[in-house]
Amino acid sequence: MKKYNIAILGASGAVGQEMIKILEEYQIPVGTLLPLASARSAGSVIRFNGQDIEIKEATEDSFEGMDFVLGAVKNAMSKKFAPAIVRAGAVYIDNSSAFRMDPEVPLVVPEINGEDAFANKGIIANPNCSTIITLMAVAAISKISPIKAMVACTYQAVSGAGQDGLYELENQMKALAEGKAVERKVFPHQIANNVIPFIGSMTDNDYTDEEMKMQNEGRRIMHLPELKVNCTCVRVPVMRSHSIAVTVYTENPVSVDDANKAIAAFEGCRLIDDYEGRCYPTPLDTSDQDLVWVGRVRKDLIADNGLVLWCCGDQIRKGAASNAVQILKKLIER
Amino acid sequence: MKKYNIAILGASGAVGQEMIKILEEYQIPVGTLLPLASARSAGSVIRFNGQDIEIKEATEDSFEGMDFVLGAVKNAMSKKFAPAIVRAGAVYIDNSSAFRMDPEVPLVVPEINGEDAFANKGIIANPNCSTIITLMAVAAISKISPIKAMVACTYQAVSGAGQDGLYELENQMKALAEGKAVERKVFPHQIANNVIPFIGSMTDNDYTDEEMKMQNEGRRIMHLPELKVNCTCVRVPVMRSHSIAVTVYTENPVSVDDANKAIAAFEGCRLIDDYEGRCYPTPLDTSDQDLVWVGRVRKDLIADNGLVLWCCGDQIRKGAASNAVQILKKLIER
Repeated sequence: MKKYNIAILGASGAVGQEMIKILEEYQIPVGTLLPLASARSAGSVIRFNGQDIEIKEATEDSFEGMDFVLGAVKNAMSKKFAPAIVRAGAVYIDNSSAFRMDPEVPLVVPEINGEDAFANKGIIANPNCSTIITLMAVAAISKISPIKAMVACTYQAVSGAGQDGLYELENQMKALAEGKAVERKVFPHQIANNVIPFIGSMTDNDYTDEEMKMQNEGRRIMHLPELKVNCTCVRVPVMRSHSIAVTVYTENPVSVDDANKAIAAFEGCRLIDDYEGRCYPTPLDTSDQDLVWVGRVRKDLIADNGLVLWCCGDQIRKGAASNAVQILKKLIER
Repeated sequence: MKKYNIAILGASGAVGQEMIKILEEYQIPVGTLLPLASARSAGSVIRFNGQDIEIKEATEDSFEGMDFVLGAVKNAMSKKFAPAIVRAGAVYIDNSSAFRMDPEVPLVVPEINGEDAFANKGIIANPNCSTIITLMAVAAISKISPIKAMVACTYQAVSGAGQDGLYELENQMKALAEGKAVERKVFPHQIANNVIPFIGSMTDNDYTDEEMKMQNEGRRIMHLPELKVNCTCVRVPVMRSHSIAVTVYTENPVSVDDANKAIAAFEGCRLIDDYEGRCYPTPLDTSDQDLVWVGRVRKDLIADNGLVLWCCGDQIRKGAASNAVQILKKLIER
């Protein structure tokens, strides 16, 4: 069986560490695993398939001999290393947003537009976490009748801000429980016992860049260039699963029954219509696994062609690391 | 100056206690203050204007001589005592949902439809907390062009479940911080580090009764009998302020500038377009005060006649106790 040499660019972060865990869990046939990070994290050790592997400092010479590079670094680092990765002949699956809107770069959720990955020219972009989870929930409905528009309100976990986001919520909760002063570095306000309706940075139309990803990335992934999405992105004090309340407007009306059947049959989704006597998932239910759970599917009360639903998915897994490894899996299985 | 005898029905709960605090804060001219509760809470003592007053057990004979009764009890208790209150000649301002849809009973947010209160026949209903806060945020826009429809996603504080809800979140956060097992009684799932997309009970159309209040009560308060609202109510781990992400569709397009000006000028609202360098409120900002803070007003990306906004308001105050006392104030000031 062919084995693949795989580098993890950003191996010390929350997503990078999860990628390594998922490579092992999915039993990807790995030859060499090369964990890379900035000089600051180089030297520390990760565990993979029973072996300790030292994290090396990423340089432009790191990628020779690699078949794939999984990227879990910020945009600037991603842009810096992408040319060297492509030159080395590896396929770069990038979790940053650096290349997501590049028409030469496929933007892929394997269950939705997995075939797009095969057209890559060396780089494949992994979509935004909330976008992946939302689209997983609605993709089955779009097969019945194409989606024209969505209103999406997110309830985003702190893991979206990486390991530091996780620490910050944990520390703030501890401080509150002990009656101590709450400190913050990562989020612009206290996040424990609070919600923050602003993620990312402001754009010209008064939406944040995070909010615009749902429409912009959604259009590319769903092959719906006219898709319109009004999105509100909100950080909530939850560790690692994002939730999204979505109103979906389709070309023709879709019944709740048909939508439920399609969601239940869609790979990577789990329909929650009677789970432990309830009709909805919560973020805690979906922590640390890959499925996107979808529930509360009901008719919109405004328009005949509308459906309303609720979905939850693990931000670090399906929202980031698992989706990237699933793209890799799709490529090696062809 | 005329003084008014005022009974608080449900004086031991979170909303009842806040009503007493607000009567004092608003300097309502109170003659006798009569705190009432169930037999279980009778005998305990509340503090009002520097005096200790014992809570008495509520009976049908409790209301003689009262001018007003502020109700902060559940529907069954409210229905039980309402006839006795009206017989005693008092005006009953009821925070339960027992009478909200009764066409004989005005349903009032003073800043929006305060005049309706004068048509009461002895009972005035205080609206649902999320409904009050949402409508406060959009009422100014509806004056520019009537609102036809709304999509509302709520981020509701645990105080909506009363004092026990507050204790439950506090205890769960403490348990998590100490690495102990999380216990729950009030909410159907762990609420610390989680969100729960189901509040109230299921109705025939797959919305919860809590979700339908936004449309049903909104129609009465706004005098918009055709208003359509698709609502998703979600409990979040926040102590006492509700937040709502709202998309508003008006008869004619309204500009962001016009909407912002109208909101800024609307009594009871505070526009957040540049507050400490940010364009949004958080629930912590609005805790323990009456104003509804509104921010992030922007054009909908789906339809020309749509606006999107974010609002926060204290659930116990403007969402319940303050609104009730403001109705009382309106009646005595006429």
